Amino acid sequence: MRTQVGIVGAGPAGLLLSHLLHLRGIESVVLEARSQNDIESTIRAGVLEQGTMDTLNQAGLGARMQAEGALHHGFELAFEGQRRRIALTELTGHSITVYAQHEVIKDLVAARLAANGALKFGVSNVSLHDFHDGSDRKPRIKYQHEGRDEELECDFIIGCDGSQGVSRQCIPEAVRQDYQRIYPFGWFGILVEAPPSSDELIYARHDRGFALISTRSPGVQRMYFQCDPKDTVDAWSDDRIWAELHARVDTADGWQITEGKIFQKNIVGMRSFVSTPMQSGRLFLAGDAAHIVPPTGAKGLNLAVSDVRVLTAALIDFYKEGRSDKLAGYTETALKRVWRAEHFSWWMTRMLHKLDDTSPFEQRLQVAELEHVTTSRAAATALAENYVGSVAV
Amino acid sequence: MRTQVGIVGAGPAGLLLSHLLHLRGIESVVLEARSQNDIESTIRAGVLEQGTMDTLNQAGLGARMQAEGALHHGFELAFEGQRRRIALTELTGHSITVYAQHEVIKDLVAARLAANGALKFGVSNVSLHDFHDGSDRKPRIKYQHEGRDEELECDFIIGCDGSQGVSRQCIPEAVRQDYQRIYPFGWFGILVEAPPSSDELIYARHDRGFALISTRSPGVQRMYFQCDPKDTVDAWSDDRIWAELHARVDTADGWQITEGKIFQKNIVGMRSFVSTPMQSGRLFLAGDAAHIVPPTGAKGLNLAVSDVRVLTAALIDFYKEGRSDKLAGYTETALKRVWRAEHFSWWMTRMLHKLDDTSPFEQRLQVAELEHVTTSRAAATALAENYVGSVAV
Repeated sequence: MRTQVGIVGAGPAGLLLSHLLHLRGIESVVLEARSQNDIESTIRAGVLEQGTMDTLNQAGLGARMQAEGALHHGFELAFEGQRRRIALTELTGHSITVYAQHEVIKDLVAARLAANGALKFGVSNVSLHDFHDGSDRKPRIKYQHEGRDEELECDFIIGCDGSQGVSRQCIPEAVRQDYQRIYPFGWFGILVEAPPSSDELIYARHDRGFALISTRSPGVQRMYFQCDPKDTVDAWSDDRIWAELHARVDTADGWQITEGKIFQKNIVGMRSFVSTPMQSGRLFLAGDAAHIVPPTGAKGLNLAVSDVRVLTAALIDFYKEGRSDKLAGYTETALKRVWRAEHFSWWMTRMLHKLDDTSPFEQRLQVAELEHVTTSRAAATALAENYVGSVAV
Repeated sequence: MRTQVGIVGAGPAGLLLSHLLHLRGIESVVLEARSQNDIESTIRAGVLEQGTMDTLNQAGLGARMQAEGALHHGFELAFEGQRRRIALTELTGHSITVYAQHEVIKDLVAARLAANGALKFGVSNVSLHDFHDGSDRKPRIKYQHEGRDEELECDFIIGCDGSQGVSRQCIPEAVRQDYQRIYPFGWFGILVEAPPSSDELIYARHDRGFALISTRSPGVQRMYFQCDPKDTVDAWSDDRIWAELHARVDTADGWQITEGKIFQKNIVGMRSFVSTPMQSGRLFLAGDAAHIVPPTGAKGLNLAVSDVRVLTAALIDFYKEGRSDKLAGYTETALKRVWRAEHFSWWMTRMLHKLDDTSPFEQRLQVAELEHVTTSRAAATALAENYVGSVAV
């Protein structure tokens, strides 16, 4: 089989890239190891930046997001027994939409299938070949599907297969540099049948640790609290979870988070990771395949979309104008936003979490920084620009 | 002897407080352990915030600062072989003046002596008495001067005797909480006979470590570079110093720092420190007696002046209006600006220095943050507001 662009991975990056290329008449094939049901039900992030919303809307993918997602014009920072608002829209002119990543995946899969897009689930043993500069053959992806060995010949291979995928490993080690920080804590996440505790998301800093009160729908809420990454969900009874969340988030004026039936519990680890370059010959990486952020800044999905925007423009330039300069500059262009998001995510994480080396001095610094970003309009604007994704890079 | 306000320490805090009180008809006595020559020649900080300039000008102390100090409307951040300007005045409407702390001291001493202010140098064995709430005696300072035991009775004792002074130790341990961070590096400082390398100060971040290019006068320059705090000046020949400064500060376009004759070398340690409360009964602390910042944010002297402004207003309220509420709230009021400056100083230090635990990831984060504060107007404004001291607290 042959196509123009071979895409490994049907996450948000791979599916969106395939659809954006399709809209410009460029054909692609998407290969995914998991099943459609799997990728459409895995709980992940849920905050879409303005630029992500714009991209989905412009591609005709925004109808259900607009109908079912919740547009937010601010969020709150809770600390020292009080809550203070970051007025995103007032400060930046932009907003965010709370809409779960697996809903975005469903919309993308539906759009690809409706357009008769080539989308293969359940592939295995994927390997990438002949993408290196100087190769006298076309790039090829070998894989197994429904028990048969298959081969996809293409002009470009795009690795959108996440941090555990094969694509990044194909960037030659001699040129690859990885940057990483693993945080000594995780997030304990719950899904709760309850009305929202608040109209807006709440990021809480407490001496006991971080907590985040988010939402999924009017009847389902998403809450997180910082935990030991080696902790187990069994160690946390519902009562213990509620006690911990109340201790970290309730405010001195008597306001409390709203309890409900907990119907899912999970623990996620936290790390920062960047791999450079994001390309080698005719292989390009996008999204988690090249970089990971801790979820505190809500940047993971948005960064994948940002990579795809840069890569789509470069591929269109190649196919429509015969120019390769944007492809050649992909890593440099994409990394500007990647490092901005890496720094922002690290900064939010450091400001809000109880760190292993947090002395009383550092605890007071966290509070001083929270006072600053909720008191100085300039500092609040800098935070808001980063959060909605309108920050200059 | 008796006075209204007994002041321990003739640094900027003690001298300025004494002079501001004098201008409102409140009498004080300043006791200083060192000689006049000593305090007028010790090389310290040199950047005055807008608010510090305003305070000195309003008190009639600004003539020589205006004539001999250099008004700066921006500074530069050097990183990755380039320099980028933070346009302080354009971003905040305020400026800074580069004018050495020992020159401020000379102006303050001259003003105090011209007004026949009581200013005793070379005192020793200072001890503070009867300042506690409930004491049935007036507060007293005992000390020795010119071989004689002396006693100063006063309404209030103000401890402006720096971090090594006796005053802070008099705050009862049961209520005192100290916050501290000692940095694992120091600053190697030199004074150089040379013209300025640049019109404005340069703060440089390099993988080899931090450097700062400052100025004292058109013919004398002050330069610093990060070093091991256990290093000795003897280990650094002039040639080695210049090689290190060139490596850290010169830019890729061929611009270089200007060399000259090095006529002083010294090494200073770096720490952050806050002691609370800043008062107990009729004893109040101001400046370094209560808090220390690393010099990266140029906040030490300015914070002492800020404390003195708060304390002067409170003492005037007491003597002129018979009200004690501002005195009672001194710690809370002063600490807002103290913690803002502590955070800013720590933040500047962390962004610009090579830290012991700096991994390649953290090095790239430093560069990403420098890109941010030199690209986002909001982030640049937040930095500039902190630097000139106009930030809201």
